[in-house]
Amino acid sequence: MKRFLVEKLPTPQNQTELSRKESDHARNVLRLREGSQIEAIDGKGSACIAVLTYKKGQAFLTWSEGQSTARASSELETLPIVLEAAVLKGSAYEWLVEKATELGTAQLAPVLSERTIVRVKDPSASNFLDRLHRIADQSLKQCGRLTRLEIAAPLPLEEALANPSDPQGKIRIWCDESQSQSGEAPTLYEYLSQLSSVPKEIRLLVGPEGGWSPSEASLIPKLSILPLQRVSLGPIVMRAETASLAGLSLVAGFFRSKLERI
Amino acid sequence: MKRFLVEKLPTPQNQTELSRKESDHARNVLRLREGSQIEAIDGKGSACIAVLTYKKGQAFLTWSEGQSTARASSELETLPIVLEAAVLKGSAYEWLVEKATELGTAQLAPVLSERTIVRVKDPSASNFLDRLHRIADQSLKQCGRLTRLEIAAPLPLEEALANPSDPQGKIRIWCDESQSQSGEAPTLYEYLSQLSSVPKEIRLLVGPEGGWSPSEASLIPKLSILPLQRVSLGPIVMRAETASLAGLSLVAGFFRSKLERI
Repeated sequence: MKRFLVEKLPTPQNQTELSRKESDHARNVLRLREGSQIEAIDGKGSACIAVLTYKKGQAFLTWSEGQSTARASSELETLPIVLEAAVLKGSAYEWLVEKATELGTAQLAPVLSERTIVRVKDPSASNFLDRLHRIADQSLKQCGRLTRLEIAAPLPLEEALANPSDPQGKIRIWCDESQSQSGEAPTLYEYLSQLSSVPKEIRLLVGPEGGWSPSEASLIPKLSILPLQRVSLGPIVMRAETASLAGLSLVAGFFRSKLERI
Repeated sequence: MKRFLVEKLPTPQNQTELSRKESDHARNVLRLREGSQIEAIDGKGSACIAVLTYKKGQAFLTWSEGQSTARASSELETLPIVLEAAVLKGSAYEWLVEKATELGTAQLAPVLSERTIVRVKDPSASNFLDRLHRIADQSLKQCGRLTRLEIAAPLPLEEALANPSDPQGKIRIWCDESQSQSGEAPTLYEYLSQLSSVPKEIRLLVGPEGGWSPSEASLIPKLSILPLQRVSLGPIVMRAETASLAGLSLVAGFFRSKLERI
């Protein structure tokens, strides 16, 4: 069944109008007929089955008798993970947004580094963020996740390290490629398996292609407002986006196994 | 430093000729000059620094005094993981080969399923395999892994389940998307964290987009020659390539943490 992202789910009293884009997509791309059943997702944790209707070519979703038992997001769907990943060039970052959504990441916090080749002129860079939001929402509709991936405005490393404003009970894990050979730091898997308590949030810090510059690397332990753990992802130096995905997969697996037991 | 894949590493006695392709790449794409230092990788676990020379436009690698202490692959680099992944359409499978190489997977065993849209006419499909080998080798050179990713000939599910010929001490883990909602099966992370001993090899079975057909799914427990564990990757239904990557990340993390302690 096709899924559509809407501001508000339809109710017995109120139908919902699809955005212009979604409406055109339903009508001209998917060629959905009047009366088709679809799943409406509000991006805030709920979804319901609804019926598609058209008025003057504009698509609306109407409450569907008996079908509309809303589905709600489980605690295990979106996990308290923030990916603090240096912005990457080309399609790598868009690809990362798609996969991070599927892996249950709560928020992407783009970080600007000395080696960030991509120019994100205005930090609240609307084009940059709009594109990433579009990709995250497509991925959400594809995998049936009910809460949108939050995407923060890109920040320089120094400012990123000062987040979050409410550090209580949260930790930051630095996936440091310089540890791949020396191996002083534990692997991420080892570190997680030895955690005695479940953090309220894990922020995963991953550098750009080629890693952080020496001066940036020295800032990380100094400026992190959160307890910082440096970890290795193994002896092979991965591409930046692969390191992010490997890290997210492990941290998501950790949270799922712990939260299930609660 | 640029890396080149060669059949044999140069020795004080013997220089090594680069393949036609690699030679052209060095000369015309990378524009490397006579005398440039590069890293030669044999794809079988060793590498050394060598010097590039040209004869009639053909590139050779010669032993470089004092520089040629060979680097050998660590036990932790290439892990005893076989990814049994259904062949996917488009670029998804090529992308998976690239990432599987970075994650330390020993072998990719492509599986043909009822829902495999890609036509792999001849099972020993040379074009298909050649392309995947090229991508795996590019990824190897990029990340500095020393052993090539093995890529087996594509097999129908029934035949894939009868592998390997030496099952002793090995297990098969089935990442089953049908478990994402029901949740009877443990998550992969839980299962790995409770393993009492380290398997000799883990074969990770991942289905096609849309999952195995009911009849295929029923074959898996029946025909697997290896002890079979069905696991969940969580409540979100991932794209097939994302599921493979998430699974590989967890299994690689598991092996690295265990093998390090041995």
